[in-house]
Amino acid sequence: MSVITLLTDFGHRDAFVGTMKGVILGICPEARIVDLSHGIAPQGIDEGAFILRTAYPYFPDGTVHVAVVDPGVGGERRALIVETPRYRFVGPDNGVFAHVFARDTVNRVVSVTETRFMLPRVSNTFHGRDVFAPVAAHLALGRAISDFGTGIDDYRTGSITEPSVHGSGIAGHVLHIDHYGNIITDISESLFLDTTREKRFQIKLAGLSLDRVNASYDEAADGTALAILDSAGLLEIAVNGGSAADLLRATPGDRVDVVVKP
Amino acid sequence: MSVITLLTDFGHRDAFVGTMKGVILGICPEARIVDLSHGIAPQGIDEGAFILRTAYPYFPDGTVHVAVVDPGVGGERRALIVETPRYRFVGPDNGVFAHVFARDTVNRVVSVTETRFMLPRVSNTFHGRDVFAPVAAHLALGRAISDFGTGIDDYRTGSITEPSVHGSGIAGHVLHIDHYGNIITDISESLFLDTTREKRFQIKLAGLSLDRVNASYDEAADGTALAILDSAGLLEIAVNGGSAADLLRATPGDRVDVVVKP
Amino acid sequence: MSVITLLTDFGHRDAFVGTMKGVILGICPEARIVDLSHGIAPQGIDEGAFILRTAYPYFPDGTVHVAVVDPGVGGERRALIVETPRYRFVGPDNGVFAHVFARDTVNRVVSVTETRFMLPRVSNTFHGRDVFAPVAAHLALGRAISDFGTGIDDYRTGSITEPSVHGSGIAGHVLHIDHYGNIITDISESLFLDTTREKRFQIKLAGLSLDRVNASYDEAADGTALAILDSAGLLEIAVNGGSAADLLRATPGDRVDVVVKP
Repeated sequence: MSVITLLTDFGHRDAFVGTMKGVILGICPEARIVDLSHGIAPQGIDEGAFILRTAYPYFPDGTVHVAVVDPGVGGERRALIVETPRYRFVGPDNGVFAHVFARDTVNRVVSVTETRFMLPRVSNTFHGRDVFAPVAAHLALGRAISDFGTGIDDYRTGSITEPSVHGSGIAGHVLHIDHYGNIITDISESLFLDTTREKRFQIKLAGLSLDRVNASYDEAADGTALAILDSAGLLEIAVNGGSAADLLRATPGDRVDVVVKP
Repeated sequence: MSVITLLTDFGHRDAFVGTMKGVILGICPEARIVDLSHGIAPQGIDEGAFILRTAYPYFPDGTVHVAVVDPGVGGERRALIVETPRYRFVGPDNGVFAHVFARDTVNRVVSVTETRFMLPRVSNTFHGRDVFAPVAAHLALGRAISDFGTGIDDYRTGSITEPSVHGSGIAGHVLHIDHYGNIITDISESLFLDTTREKRFQIKLAGLSLDRVNASYDEAADGTALAILDSAGLLEIAVNGGSAADLLRATPGDRVDVVVKP
Repeated sequence: MSVITLLTDFGHRDAFVGTMKGVILGICPEARIVDLSHGIAPQGIDEGAFILRTAYPYFPDGTVHVAVVDPGVGGERRALIVETPRYRFVGPDNGVFAHVFARDTVNRVVSVTETRFMLPRVSNTFHGRDVFAPVAAHLALGRAISDFGTGIDDYRTGSITEPSVHGSGIAGHVLHIDHYGNIITDISESLFLDTTREKRFQIKLAGLSLDRVNASYDEAADGTALAILDSAGLLEIAVNGGSAADLLRATPGDRVDVVVKP
């Protein structure tokens, strides 16, 4: 079995995603195709990179992960295959694999140049269909990565905010707002627990101050804010039964502080 | 073949649903996974329960239906497997299976406690991934329900409005507004036909009064309201080529009356 | 392997699409089901017809394409199977196959009348579930088209705008606005290139005038408009990093001119 996942900013009105699946099934009829998200904001490379991170480690070994958030389609940007111990990733060289590069072991990165693995005619506007889908399907068939092009090491690693630790705690950032309005920060569970161990602390964001971490959303009263360690291993600010992002008007990049009491 | 369906309030921006599929395919590579809906309103247990009802009987025997609308995730609520003659249902013990309990034959309900069928680390915020997906995959592999935990009978049956029949007709309610703005009531076709048989009647909702049931939407003039017996076997108020919910400002819970003329 | 694609205006909140898949898997367990789009505007026959066109030729031979945009459900409109050299199409007789009829070779069109290929009870409101899904599944199983009903030739071909060529250029129209706000016209690449070959030209839409065609979106400055030959082989007006439809307030049917300079 070969699993191929798809993450794009293609939305749900056009048939862009379905067309990619048609191309894949024409090359690799046995592929199991799984949608990760097609609701990434148009050209939202950083958002796509984060959402890919939350999902890809949960797939079987050998899965091919395709990510197409591609404002530079048709221009000079390269098409990449990134190989890690467990997976192959296919997509544009624009930072959409930022979290893979930052957190995983990268064996090889290949710039795809072999046109025999693309559709016969490559358009200027839809490389998801013409390049990335057929490349992913040929990978799923077992084709060796080195057949697709040459190894490179000057690929774009992308930009990820990182929290900084200082004398009185952690200076972090809002990384993502999820479907529920939960505010996901770039402060990892391990960093948070190491920094606050056996100390009193305050988590601060946009006028809000929280002095504890809850074990479930419903420990907080309905409509009130809480902090929780989330399913991606990150510190999250949520509102029980509501949207923390609406309540606090938070957006990605906003500052989040953890202040440790002496 | 094992079919697993997924119904959640996870939306289409994050990769929550895709991640569940990765977990399922890692355990049961042959599973056929079908999305029922991921557009349930956040924490919309009643809406999820109704939408599950409209879909699940149309699946092959043996299908495992997973429903994750789960505001109590991480707290005290239990995880359930519900067995009916044809299906197994997996989800939280919060009423999301209300229509299954009300309309189907329940053989057994098991509270899932065996952690060996969950992911090694269960988060506080995403039991869809950590509990429900792996449990469903193990069920699809053929594992016996009794292996997952102990039978219970104090599960939450949930709340469903029911129409009442009185001397002059039926007092019912709006149960659901669908994608087109069609107003689905809790008045069943059989109740409606039994009550109105060979009598004149009026269907009343928000100032609207209809004295007939149409056989197709386009029997009504464009933009005008009509009543129809719908695909779920329920009385529906619709507008040909438009949205009845917008026209009548109807929402779930609103009163709908069928008044029979003497 | 049998591939079945689904295109509807059913949206993403109800389980209409999932229910169709349950019916299909009950009849043809091996079917590979691919979503083309379920975000067609309610009753948007022309939009559905165009989006189907962009996707269907990319599927393997033998694919069954189901399109359900069906305001006439329950009324007099017929159910069709359309056979082309590579595919079978299933859907209502209302013009949703307009681009198939206009651009492909049609071998046969059958009006589906054999109720044994439908669900035992056919509702008035959901033929996607009761008629089109089971018919598609029986086609995928290998059933001959002639078994489903009788051949007809008075089917509805639908309406498609066509550009007209005149002495000073091309008078075309906006055909579709895609997810990114790109404006897709009905002026084909070949018509555009034949008409403008070695001549100066202006592409005019809503006060905008462009005198070149770009090879990629990012050749234009961020936020500025450009023309490009798109992935469907059509002339497209786009804005690099933005929405051309928002900038130009364009909607389907609007006039687009290509004026050739003598």
